[in-house]
Amino acid sequence: MNHFINELIGYRTALYSTDFLLTWDHSEGDIRAVLAVAACLKELHRQGKSCRVFDTGLAISIFRDNSTRTRFSFASAANALGLGLSELDEVKSQVAHGETVRETANMISFLAEVIGIRDDMYLGEGNTFMREVGAAAEEGHAQGVLHQRPSVINLQCDIDHPTQTLADLMHLKAHFGSLESLRGRKIAMTWAYSPSYGKPLSVPQGIIGVMTRFGMDVSLAYPEGYELIPEVVERARDQARMSGGSLTVSNSMDEAFAAADIVYPKSWAPFHVMQKRTGLLHKGDRPGLAELERECLAENAHHQSWECDEKKMASTNGGKALYMHCLPADISGVSCVHGEVAASVFERYRIATYRQAGYKPFVIAALMFLTRMAEPVKTLDTLIQRSISRALQER
Amino acid sequence: MNHFINELIGYRTALYSTDFLLTWDHSEGDIRAVLAVAACLKELHRQGKSCRVFDTGLAISIFRDNSTRTRFSFASAANALGLGLSELDEVKSQVAHGETVRETANMISFLAEVIGIRDDMYLGEGNTFMREVGAAAEEGHAQGVLHQRPSVINLQCDIDHPTQTLADLMHLKAHFGSLESLRGRKIAMTWAYSPSYGKPLSVPQGIIGVMTRFGMDVSLAYPEGYELIPEVVERARDQARMSGGSLTVSNSMDEAFAAADIVYPKSWAPFHVMQKRTGLLHKGDRPGLAELERECLAENAHHQSWECDEKKMASTNGGKALYMHCLPADISGVSCVHGEVAASVFERYRIATYRQAGYKPFVIAALMFLTRMAEPVKTLDTLIQRSISRALQER
Amino acid sequence: MNHFINELIGYRTALYSTDFLLTWDHSEGDIRAVLAVAACLKELHRQGKSCRVFDTGLAISIFRDNSTRTRFSFASAANALGLGLSELDEVKSQVAHGETVRETANMISFLAEVIGIRDDMYLGEGNTFMREVGAAAEEGHAQGVLHQRPSVINLQCDIDHPTQTLADLMHLKAHFGSLESLRGRKIAMTWAYSPSYGKPLSVPQGIIGVMTRFGMDVSLAYPEGYELIPEVVERARDQARMSGGSLTVSNSMDEAFAAADIVYPKSWAPFHVMQKRTGLLHKGDRPGLAELERECLAENAHHQSWECDEKKMASTNGGKALYMHCLPADISGVSCVHGEVAASVFERYRIATYRQAGYKPFVIAALMFLTRMAEPVKTLDTLIQRSISRALQER
Repeated sequence: MNHFINELIGYRTALYSTDFLLTWDHSEGDIRAVLAVAACLKELHRQGKSCRVFDTGLAISIFRDNSTRTRFSFASAANALGLGLSELDEVKSQVAHGETVRETANMISFLAEVIGIRDDMYLGEGNTFMREVGAAAEEGHAQGVLHQRPSVINLQCDIDHPTQTLADLMHLKAHFGSLESLRGRKIAMTWAYSPSYGKPLSVPQGIIGVMTRFGMDVSLAYPEGYELIPEVVERARDQARMSGGSLTVSNSMDEAFAAADIVYPKSWAPFHVMQKRTGLLHKGDRPGLAELERECLAENAHHQSWECDEKKMASTNGGKALYMHCLPADISGVSCVHGEVAASVFERYRIATYRQAGYKPFVIAALMFLTRMAEPVKTLDTLIQRSISRALQER
Repeated sequence: MNHFINELIGYRTALYSTDFLLTWDHSEGDIRAVLAVAACLKELHRQGKSCRVFDTGLAISIFRDNSTRTRFSFASAANALGLGLSELDEVKSQVAHGETVRETANMISFLAEVIGIRDDMYLGEGNTFMREVGAAAEEGHAQGVLHQRPSVINLQCDIDHPTQTLADLMHLKAHFGSLESLRGRKIAMTWAYSPSYGKPLSVPQGIIGVMTRFGMDVSLAYPEGYELIPEVVERARDQARMSGGSLTVSNSMDEAFAAADIVYPKSWAPFHVMQKRTGLLHKGDRPGLAELERECLAENAHHQSWECDEKKMASTNGGKALYMHCLPADISGVSCVHGEVAASVFERYRIATYRQAGYKPFVIAALMFLTRMAEPVKTLDTLIQRSISRALQER
Repeated sequence: MNHFINELIGYRTALYSTDFLLTWDHSEGDIRAVLAVAACLKELHRQGKSCRVFDTGLAISIFRDNSTRTRFSFASAANALGLGLSELDEVKSQVAHGETVRETANMISFLAEVIGIRDDMYLGEGNTFMREVGAAAEEGHAQGVLHQRPSVINLQCDIDHPTQTLADLMHLKAHFGSLESLRGRKIAMTWAYSPSYGKPLSVPQGIIGVMTRFGMDVSLAYPEGYELIPEVVERARDQARMSGGSLTVSNSMDEAFAAADIVYPKSWAPFHVMQKRTGLLHKGDRPGLAELERECLAENAHHQSWECDEKKMASTNGGKALYMHCLPADISGVSCVHGEVAASVFERYRIATYRQAGYKPFVIAALMFLTRMAEPVKTLDTLIQRSISRALQER
C-alpha cells in the first residue's frame, strides 16, 4: 500500500479545510490526490480493513432532488470514515418556512464535519446555494459560533457533478492503466435522446471540465440548440489547450463517436431552456412551465436518432469504445420505447457501468478525508499501518 | 455463557454468506443456531455488555410497507452489532422511476453487509423481489463490482416472516423451558376476525412452517375460503410427519382451541383474494380493487364469531393456553368494535406479547451475525471473553 | 477541566434513571449539574476531543411537529455520545393506525437509552404523551420486557421547552460570567407580533419557569388576552419569591423593556385559544378551526406595535440589553412585512442568537449523560482523562 502514500506526498494537496464544489477550482495535484486516497480507501475496504478515522462526528446531507446512488454513496462514505449521517429533509424541516440559508447552515453545523449538498434543479441556483452555505459556515466559525468549519461537498449542482466525474476518471484510470495513458485518447461526450425532460447539465459540463485537464481529445456533440453553459465550455477549451489535449464541439453524434476510445451518451436539457425554466419557476408560472415542457419534449422527439446503437458503437476505435453512463440510463425497449442507448449495447457494458458507479463512495470518502484531515499523508499512513479488520472475527 | 458456545458448536451452522428468506430452506441446526446466538446476544445486552462485532459497515433496509416494530428491530440489531443503518426509501429514491432491481441492488451494496427487506403486499412478488436482490448482489460480487456479497434478510414477504416466527419460537422455548419440551404440545394457529382487509399470509404460513419442525401438534383453522398458499401447507405437513408432530386443518376455531397449549389467533386475507388483488394491482384496476375490498370485508363480516374470547380461552389446556400475537392486535372495544381478541384476554397476556416481540431485535442480530461471520463460534467466544460494557462508566 | 468535576461533585445530582420533562420538577443542583456537564462536553468538543461514552445504543426521537434545530441538536448529541439515532416517523410507522402509546413505547425501546419527544401542538397533550411513554417504559422494565428503562427527554411540549431554556440559561451564564451574576438582572419575556398563528406557549412558560429560580427580575408582558397557563405562572411566582427575584406581569412591552438587561420578545398564541383549538382538533371541526385561525390573526393584527424595534431597545439598560430568540424569528422586512423584531435589531444580535442556539446540542447531550450514567462524576472524569481525539490524525 506504500505507493499510495508516496503518490500522495508528491501531490502536495491543499484541500484541508476547503469546500469542494467545482473540479476546475482545484489544482491537478488535488485531483490526483483525491484519486489516490479514494483508491487507497477502496483497497483497504476490499481487504476487509477499516477506514475509520473519526471517533464521532456528523456528515450532513441536503438533497434537493431525488437520488438513490449519490445518497447511498454519501451514506457509505460517511459510515466508512466513522461519521454519523444526518439528512436535512426540507419537507420535514423548517427551511421551506422562510429560514434564511445562513441561519440554517449554522444550526445544522454545530457538530458537523462535512455537508454534502445536491441541488441541481435550477440553473443558477444550486452552486450559488452551496457557496452561501459555505460562506455562512465560514462566518459562523470566524465568529466563534462553530468550533470547526465544516466542508461543503458538491453532490451535484447546476454546473458540475464532481463526485460523479472523479469516479468516472478513476474508472478510466483503472480501465486504461493510468492517468498518463489517457493522453491522446478520444472521449465522446454526447447528447442522447430521452423521452424525459429537464435533466441537468452537470454531467456533460463536469466531464468536459475534468477530462480536458488530462490531455484527452474531448469531442462534445449535441443537436443544434442543446448548448451547455458557455463559460464552462470556454474553461474546458482553455484547459484542453494547456494540457495538450483538445475540445471539439459539433452537432453530429457520428462525428463524435468516430474512432472514439470512450463514449458517454447522455440526455440533458438545453441551457436556454433551463434558463427559461428557472425564470418561470421563480414566477410560479405553472401554465408556462407546462408549455415549456411540451415544447421541449416535442423538440427532443426530432432527435430520436441520437441513440447509442450498435452501428454507432461499431464506428468507434476497434468497435470497442468503453461505454459510460452515470445511471440510470434510458435503455431502448427496456426502460422506455426509444432511449439513450440500445439494449444490446447497454447489456454488454452493464457490469462496467456498475463498476464505474462503484468508485463514487470512495471518491466521496476521499473528499471528506482530504478536506478534514490536517495531515493527510500521516493519517493515511497511520490507517494503513493500523490495519484493523472491519469485523471482529478477523481481529 | 459457555453453554451458548457449546450449543453453537453442536449445530455446525452453514449460514455464513447466505440469504435468510424462508425458515424451511435452512436446516434444523441452523434454526437452533439462530436461537442460540440470539439468546447469547440478548444475555450480553441484559448484562450491559457490548455486542459490537463491526467497526464500520452498513445495514440497508428496504421497507415496501409500513412498519414500526420490524423497522425498529432491524435498526436496533444493526446498531447492536456496530453497523450503520441506511434506509432505501422508495418515495425519495429513484427505484420507482424505472430502475431495474439488479441495478439498484448493486448501487446500494458497495459497502453493505446486510440488506433487510420487507415486501409483503403482493402475493407472488415479495419473495421473488428478495431473490432478485440476492441474485443481483451475487452477480455483482462475482463480477468484481462488490467487494463482498451482502446477505439478504427477509423482514416479511408474501410467503414467510422468519424474524417474527423465530422470535415466536424463542418465546415458546423460554416459556416452556426448551425446544424439546415443545414436542407434543398443541398450538392453534387460527384466523380471527378483523374489520380490516388484506393482511398478509406470512405469519400463519411462517408459524406452521416452523412449528411443525419441532414435533408440535399444529392445528390450523380458518373459515371456509381463507386458505393459505397450498405449497406451504404441504411443506408443513411433510415436516410434521418427519418431526413426529402433526398438522391438522379445520374450519373450526373451537376445535383448534380445544386443549391447546398455545393459541395464535390472527386475521389474514384469503389466498385467492390476494391472488386476484395482485392481478388487479398489476392492471391498475382501481374500481376492481375497490370492489374486491368491498366483497372481502362483506365476507369477513360473516365471521365475527372468530374472536379469541374468554369462552374459547377456557376450552384450552387448563384454560391457560399461552396467547400469542405479532402485534398490533385488533382488540374488541379498544382498537375496534369487534376484533381478533377480547379486551380482557388481551390485557391478561399484554405483557407476554411485549416479551414475545422483544426477541425480534436479537433474532435479526443473530441472522446478521451468522450470515456475516465466517467463524461464528470463535467470534461469539471472543465477544463473550472481551466483555466490554456498553457505557463508559462501567469500563 | 477539573473545575467541571469539582462543580459536579457539589451538585449531588439525582438525574440518573429519570425523565427530564419540566425544569421545575428538578432541583437547582440538577439544573446546575446539567449546565456544568454541558459546558464540559462543549469544551471537550472545542478541543477536538471525543465525548463518546456509549459503545452502542440507540437514541430514539419522536417529532410530532416540524423542527430543524431541535432535530439536529438531538442527532448531534446522540452522535457525540456514541448513540445511534432512530427516528419514529409517525407517517411511516403504525402509530397513527391505532396502536396504543404503551405498546409502541415498549416496541421502540428494547435497545434504547433515551427517547426524545417533541409534541407541542395541542395544549394538554404533549406533556401527557411524554408521561405516558415514560410510564409505559417503566412498566416494561418492571415486567422484564425491557432490560433497561430508557429516559424520556422533553424536546418541547405544550408546557415547557427545557432543552431550549437551559441552553438560554447557559448563554446568559456565559454572557454575564456566572449564574450568580444573573441575580437582580431584569429579563423581559414579552409577546411580540407575528403574522402567523398557533405558536406554542412552551418557550415563554419555560423561560419564566427557569429564570425565576436564579434571583432574576422577570418581567412578563403580553397584550390583554394572551395569557399563559395559569399554574405555570403561579409556579414561577413562587420560585421568584424563594430565590429572591421577582415576577411582574403586565400588558406593556415598554414597561417590560424599560431598563431590562435581557429581552426575549416572541410570539405565542393565547392560552384560551390553544384550549379551544385542541377541542376543535379532537372533534375534527375544520370549519371551526379555520374560523378560529381567522379570528386569532385578526386579533393579532391589533398588536403590530409589539415589535422589538430600535426605540424599545434604546429604553433598555444602557440601550444594550441582550436580545434573545429561540429562532427562527419573524424579522420585519426580511421574513415578513411586520414581525417580532426590526431587521436592524436582529442583525446586530444575529450572531449572538446563533451562539445561544449552539448550547442546545450540549444541553441535550448533558441530559442524556446525566440520566444514563450511574456515576456521572466518575464517568466525566474518565472522559476528561482519556482525552481521545475525534479524528485519527491527532491520536
